Amino acid sequence: VVQAGAMKPYELYYWPSIQGRGELVRLALEEAAAPYVDVARTPRGMSAMMKLIAGHGSGLAPFAPPFLKAGALVVAQTANILLYLGERHGLAPKADAGRLGAHQLQLTAMDFVAEAHDVHHPVGAGLYFVGERIPKFLGYFEGVLSKNGPFMMGPRLTYVDLTMFQIVAGLDYAFPRTMKRMNRKIAGLRALHDRVKARPRVARYLASERRLAFNEHGIFRHYPELDLAR
Amino acid sequence: VVQAGAMKPYELYYWPSIQGRGELVRLALEEAAAPYVDVARTPRGMSAMMKLIAGHGSGLAPFAPPFLKAGALVVAQTANILLYLGERHGLAPKADAGRLGAHQLQLTAMDFVAEAHDVHHPVGAGLYFVGERIPKFLGYFEGVLSKNGPFMMGPRLTYVDLTMFQIVAGLDYAFPRTMKRMNRKIAGLRALHDRVKARPRVARYLASERRLAFNEHGIFRHYPELDLAR
Repeated sequence: VVQAGAMKPYELYYWPSIQGRGELVRLALEEAAAPYVDVARTPRGMSAMMKLIAGHGSGLAPFAPPFLKAGALVVAQTANILLYLGERHGLAPKADAGRLGAHQLQLTAMDFVAEAHDVHHPVGAGLYFVGERIPKFLGYFEGVLSKNGPFMMGPRLTYVDLTMFQIVAGLDYAFPRTMKRMNRKIAGLRALHDRVKARPRVARYLASERRLAFNEHGIFRHYPELDLAR
Repeated sequence: VVQAGAMKPYELYYWPSIQGRGELVRLALEEAAAPYVDVARTPRGMSAMMKLIAGHGSGLAPFAPPFLKAGALVVAQTANILLYLGERHGLAPKADAGRLGAHQLQLTAMDFVAEAHDVHHPVGAGLYFVGERIPKFLGYFEGVLSKNGPFMMGPRLTYVDLTMFQIVAGLDYAFPRTMKRMNRKIAGLRALHDRVKARPRVARYLASERRLAFNEHGIFRHYPELDLAR
């Protein structure tokens, strides 16, 4: 547990005019009596926030607010920030089962928050997804990879690379025309996909009965009418 | 890092006929050469899975598959499972910045996966949200609380309780008629909300300028036509 008096204030970055997901971080900072600056609500704070999102900070650029700067460390994703703060400020159980259990509940709460948001702000509509969201997310991941490479987190494969393989494979299946058009922009992710696919254990798995085929009941479904036009 | 030969097989629980989110866990288990049983694809496996979801296991019941049984520990939420496996099997950076960075990327990937799923399977539609999703999520949280109480994770407040406060407060603002009807079913969450709200630091924060008001630009928006009818 950190002594509040002994530390430099945290910097919280979030949209200045809504509670949103940032509020879940604020509540933890307030309950912990941890000094923090709500950066985007200070003069020139918005432009500082947009610079970090654009990747002008050190380390991993956040995909979206909220994110928290703690010294040199920038932590993004609400539940991840709370995992970090929970441990530092005694707002989480210390033993493994409790620590993972609290995080599991928090992630379930985040799913619920996302659904509440979707009620008035659906982003999954077909054309919007292929036209805006696929380029935005893949562009972000490609940027991280080109900065960190050869793997998403640097020199060694992590679980994130396995997930990137699955996302590229799934999008190839579901949105082949969109992915063909994206090809030049995601050259790094494509190469990563191929490299993961060729790893001996992964290759053996993919060739086994343990691997289910993509189909129209899963996450990535091939409905040609949802893909870009030819 | 765990010696594969020395351990009891993991038990993976996921829908047996799709890749889905479970595939992200399978890829990690396969790349780690970690022995596992894909329980729902074995005889009587589905009924074992449904029993754990219904809360007939020890510890925290998972809200949904996938979840992983590792000895007595049950870990749910895909990114949380990967956080756990990544650390145990050398599939994640060891230092704090890398460990949190990998998890941050994974959570961003999970957001993307959820959006891909929404293309064909939107769950955020107004009436479905108030009629089905609010009762399902709040019912789950109420169940966890009544099992663990007085706080979500037991005797001490964690960041999850702060999030529960915010969710109840946000739903009260956005869907007052729905929440009024839910009141008897969420007596525990309501009491938790009140208790968190009255904590000295939280109360001082809520009364300060640092707390923004709910409004129609945030997650919880009050559109009376999306609420249950009077």
